[in-house]
Amino acid sequence: MRIEIWSDVVCPWCYVGKRRLETALAGFEHRDEVEVVYRSFELDPSAPRHGHELSTSVIAQKYGRSEDEMRDMQQQLVDLAAQEGLAFRLFETVHTNTVDAHRLLHLALDEGGAAQQRELKEALLSAYFEWAEDVGDHAVLRAVAVSAGLDGERVDAVLASEEYGDAVGRDIHRARTLGIGGVPFFVLDGKYAVSGAQPAALFGQALEQAWAAAHPQLDVIGSGGEACGPDGCAI
Amino acid sequence: MRIEIWSDVVCPWCYVGKRRLETALAGFEHRDEVEVVYRSFELDPSAPRHGHELSTSVIAQKYGRSEDEMRDMQQQLVDLAAQEGLAFRLFETVHTNTVDAHRLLHLALDEGGAAQQRELKEALLSAYFEWAEDVGDHAVLRAVAVSAGLDGERVDAVLASEEYGDAVGRDIHRARTLGIGGVPFFVLDGKYAVSGAQPAALFGQALEQAWAAAHPQLDVIGSGGEACGPDGCAI
Repeated sequence: MRIEIWSDVVCPWCYVGKRRLETALAGFEHRDEVEVVYRSFELDPSAPRHGHELSTSVIAQKYGRSEDEMRDMQQQLVDLAAQEGLAFRLFETVHTNTVDAHRLLHLALDEGGAAQQRELKEALLSAYFEWAEDVGDHAVLRAVAVSAGLDGERVDAVLASEEYGDAVGRDIHRARTLGIGGVPFFVLDGKYAVSGAQPAALFGQALEQAWAAAHPQLDVIGSGGEACGPDGCAI
Repeated sequence: MRIEIWSDVVCPWCYVGKRRLETALAGFEHRDEVEVVYRSFELDPSAPRHGHELSTSVIAQKYGRSEDEMRDMQQQLVDLAAQEGLAFRLFETVHTNTVDAHRLLHLALDEGGAAQQRELKEALLSAYFEWAEDVGDHAVLRAVAVSAGLDGERVDAVLASEEYGDAVGRDIHRARTLGIGGVPFFVLDGKYAVSGAQPAALFGQALEQAWAAAHPQLDVIGSGGEACGPDGCAI
C-alpha cells in the first residue's frame, strides 16, 4: 500500500498531521507493507530564498491581522503541537522559500528511496519548527540533508543546479489536478483521500479501508451460470 | 483491464461463454483496453492422452445415465451453441486429455502474448467441438497450433518435453485457491468474478463495474481537517 502526502516544509499542520499518521501506522497491523512518499507543495512560491522576516510579521501583514492576533493563533498551534510531542518555536520561524528543500526531498527519494526521504522530511520539519532554522538557506539545507544521510557532494551539486525542479513542478501540477488546495493532503493507493491533519483514529480507519480495497475478496457479479465441473456439464 | 478466464478445451460451456463475453466486449466502449488471458483448468486430468471412446459413452457411464439421456442433454447444448453461431458436433467428440493443449496455450501466451493465446484457444475449441478432432493427439495439436500462428518447431519441442507443465499446475492451484469448482470462470482485474457462461448482458454489466472500479474518483475518507493553504493555516 502506498500513501502519498502532499506537504510543505513550513506547514505546521503538515508536521502535526505527520505525527498523527505515524500514530495510526504504529497501531496498524500491516504497517510493514505501507510505503509513505512525500510530494511537493509550496504554500508560498513567492517567498524569498533567504528568510529576512519573521513568519508572524509576514502572515499578519498578508492577512491584515494584528501581530497580537497572530500570536494568539500561533500559541494555540504551539499547544496542539505539544500534544503530539513537538516543541514548536513558531514565533521565531522565518518566512522563507521551500523549493530547494523540495528538490532535496526528491533527491532523497530518488537515491535513497522512501525511507531516506522520510528521514529528510522529518529533519527539515524539525529544523524549521523546533529549531527555527531558515530551510531556504543552502548551508542549513546541506547540514540537515547530510544529517539525514545524504551525500554532501550530491547535495551541493543539486543545490547549485536546478536538478529536480521539474519533479517539484510535476508534484504541484498533480496536486492541482487532484484539486488539492491545502496541505497536508494524504492519498492512499491513488484512491482514498484524507485532507488535513485529521485525528489518528481517522487515519487508522483510512488505512483499514484502503488495505481492504487493495486485498479484495472476489466480488461475485454473476454466479451459477452454465458451467462444466468434475461432475459434468450442467444444462 | 485484465480478464482471466479459467477454462478447459473440452468444456462446451467454455466455448459458449467465450462467445457471450465476446458479444459483450464488442459493445464495450473501452474494449481496446481490455486484455483477455486464458488460465488452465482440467475437467478430467485422468483422461487418456489419446481419445479412444466417444465423450458421450464415457460421460454416460461415469454418471450412470443412459446414452439416450445423454444424447437428449447434448442436443440441448447443440441447440444453445447454435444460437451463438457455433456448429457443435457433440456426438462425435472423443474423451481425451487436455494437459498438452494447455501447455501450448501457455507457450502461445509466453511467446506471442494474449492475442496469440486467444487465437490458439479459439482454434482448439473449434477443432474439438466443431470438427470433433482429438485435441490430445500431438499431430492434431501441432496442426492447430501452427494454423494459429505458432512456430512448428517450438510446438514440437514443447510437446516432446514437459515444458509449461508447471505453468498449467500453477493455474490449477490458483483456481483451487479462488474456490473455482467449474468452468468457465471469469475474473476481472483480480477483483470481480463471473461464474459460468452467463448472458452477454451480465458480462457487459461486469465490464462496466470493473472498469469503474479501476478508474476511481478519489474517495474522500476525511475532509476539512486542519490544514494550511495559500490563505494561511486554519486553527
